Amino acid sequence: MADQNPQKSFGTENSTKGAYVTGGEFTRDTNYIEDRVVADVDAVSSAPREESSSIGDPRISGLTEDAEAWPVEPGRYRLVAARACPWAHRSIIIRRLLGLEDAISLATPGPVHDIRSWTFDLTEDGRDPVLGTERLQENYFARFPDYPRGITVPALVDVPSGGVVTNNYPQLTWDFSTQWKEHHREGAPNLIPEELIEDMLPVIKRIFTEVNNGVYRAGFAGSQEAYDAAYDRLFTALDRLEERLTDQRYLMGEHITEADIRLFTTLVRFDPVYHGHFKCNRQKLADFPNLWAYARDLFQTPGFGDTVDFDQIKAHYYVVHEDINPTQVIPKGPELESWLSPHGREKLGGSPFAEGATAPGPVAEEERPPGANPLYR
Amino acid sequence: MADQNPQKSFGTENSTKGAYVTGGEFTRDTNYIEDRVVADVDAVSSAPREESSSIGDPRISGLTEDAEAWPVEPGRYRLVAARACPWAHRSIIIRRLLGLEDAISLATPGPVHDIRSWTFDLTEDGRDPVLGTERLQENYFARFPDYPRGITVPALVDVPSGGVVTNNYPQLTWDFSTQWKEHHREGAPNLIPEELIEDMLPVIKRIFTEVNNGVYRAGFAGSQEAYDAAYDRLFTALDRLEERLTDQRYLMGEHITEADIRLFTTLVRFDPVYHGHFKCNRQKLADFPNLWAYARDLFQTPGFGDTVDFDQIKAHYYVVHEDINPTQVIPKGPELESWLSPHGREKLGGSPFAEGATAPGPVAEEERPPGANPLYR
Repeated sequence: MADQNPQKSFGTENSTKGAYVTGGEFTRDTNYIEDRVVADVDAVSSAPREESSSIGDPRISGLTEDAEAWPVEPGRYRLVAARACPWAHRSIIIRRLLGLEDAISLATPGPVHDIRSWTFDLTEDGRDPVLGTERLQENYFARFPDYPRGITVPALVDVPSGGVVTNNYPQLTWDFSTQWKEHHREGAPNLIPEELIEDMLPVIKRIFTEVNNGVYRAGFAGSQEAYDAAYDRLFTALDRLEERLTDQRYLMGEHITEADIRLFTTLVRFDPVYHGHFKCNRQKLADFPNLWAYARDLFQTPGFGDTVDFDQIKAHYYVVHEDINPTQVIPKGPELESWLSPHGREKLGGSPFAEGATAPGPVAEEERPPGANPLYR
Repeated sequence: MADQNPQKSFGTENSTKGAYVTGGEFTRDTNYIEDRVVADVDAVSSAPREESSSIGDPRISGLTEDAEAWPVEPGRYRLVAARACPWAHRSIIIRRLLGLEDAISLATPGPVHDIRSWTFDLTEDGRDPVLGTERLQENYFARFPDYPRGITVPALVDVPSGGVVTNNYPQLTWDFSTQWKEHHREGAPNLIPEELIEDMLPVIKRIFTEVNNGVYRAGFAGSQEAYDAAYDRLFTALDRLEERLTDQRYLMGEHITEADIRLFTTLVRFDPVYHGHFKCNRQKLADFPNLWAYARDLFQTPGFGDTVDFDQIKAHYYVVHEDINPTQVIPKGPELESWLSPHGREKLGGSPFAEGATAPGPVAEEERPPGANPLYR
């Protein structure tokens, strides 16, 4: 699910919500449409069913109960991913690093969804040019007419039927890496190197619970006590990451992995949104020497900063979360130019991509983020 | 007036409000009880009446229409000044720098007033021990039973009658300097040196309109356009001050004047409150090299930092302004220890106080701010 306005309770009404607050603490709904698009449908379908969704362990090879396997097929699927949303942003970066642009097209709903759905309101006629729908909700209903949960991004849509195949974002990007290999660009990096998986799993799990979700736990806390606890928990995690990045260039060592992408999408939103809007204000990202240099290092690497739209990011949080920002006024700050300042992380050794892998080329004109981004001045 | 929750309209009801929003722009109500406490009642009373209140020009020697002059008399008046409020904070600092503690006693209402009034809720029985009232409103009514405007701090109360003498804060501190001279401590600084007044007036006026009030204009903007304009105006002013403080230690040159006190009370609230709560987030105070060193220089000077209560400051804004922070959750950040880091401003020459003047001694135990302050660890 993704990045939305949580409510005190989570009913069965159709909405964009995918989270709720109980006893003052924010809890993310982690029930998804758990279908997968895979290279070998028969093998995956006949494997023993998994007990729970892949969020805990993205290595799983099978399907969860009731889920279906769909075949990898270039041109068949459309990734619906709002640039504003950190969970969707992850899929945009990974699609680009792997060079899946020609195989999986991209639809970008606007930042300000309404109570019902993310909407394709950035196009002139308010419809997605490929799917023909105005609201992503229509694509959820095309699959399940009585779909009861949040209308979330990212969602992978089957273009022929118009129905959502999956909105299970941790599995989605994992499958981009493992199932779509045949369609990766030449020189695509391996974001999940076999030899690192064991070490990576606890790292990405902690990034999810403590950081990606940690900022929401602070921002949507329903009581001072819940907020105070969330704040401490978040900054404890950031302090650990700051320490971890002292003498290694990336989270898992010398090269970029999916773990870095997962952390980046929260870091890039930290000073523009989470610091003020979610009250994560012990200090700014820019006040963590290592994390800030690391974030700039990634931002300046093709595939990261060139996918960022600071205007859409700010508009989303400050306008949609009317319950914590009733005026819906969007802050003008912070300044963004410093994202381009030298990061100095080369001295730690390592390189963005391992030998044989290369950086992606420039973003196609039609996929450039339209809003504020110092790379596009 | 002071630091309060503005409403869309300002009626005649009794309340703590002293501000309103018109056409999206925040406007501060600047009508006060304009009586003065003066050294020579007869001279001031018989001088020609002034046309308007002293806010524009605090040099005025007479009274405005309908205002009265009261005699300077140690022990007669009580300064009611919430530590949370920047306008009241100014009077606390100046009282202390001038050593007026024995002449004018201090009452400190809690940070979280209700719709009716600032309240004396920090005492055990919820009453001010000298005035005997629970709410400052009672002291306004003791003077004017049908007082129609905001119940604001600072307010100077005549202890025998329990009535408010004045809440006209710019004149109040000016008179502390000029009318209470006989009761200043030995070594009290001259905060309004005769030879600097002409240069000082436009500076303090600009600090009021652009900075003290500028942060409120941003935070209480009723529209995106009003906010955007307020943000630009505020940071233009801060950029100018940053420049001004490049090669002079204080605003008016070598020593502290009232202009510095007026700027300090906004700067000390900037990162804990205005940056996030009022969306003044182009950068933090800590990101302005000169302004931040200047603010630390003042903070570390007796009379400034030792009057600050960061807990009360944060509680006030985040709890009272329910219309911009509906959860009323108070941020835990930012860290405060850095207020004590070396400022290095001695190299610019100058000294806090001119020759012959001295710093005040330690704050009396009973007047110590009870909340967070790195000076009192």
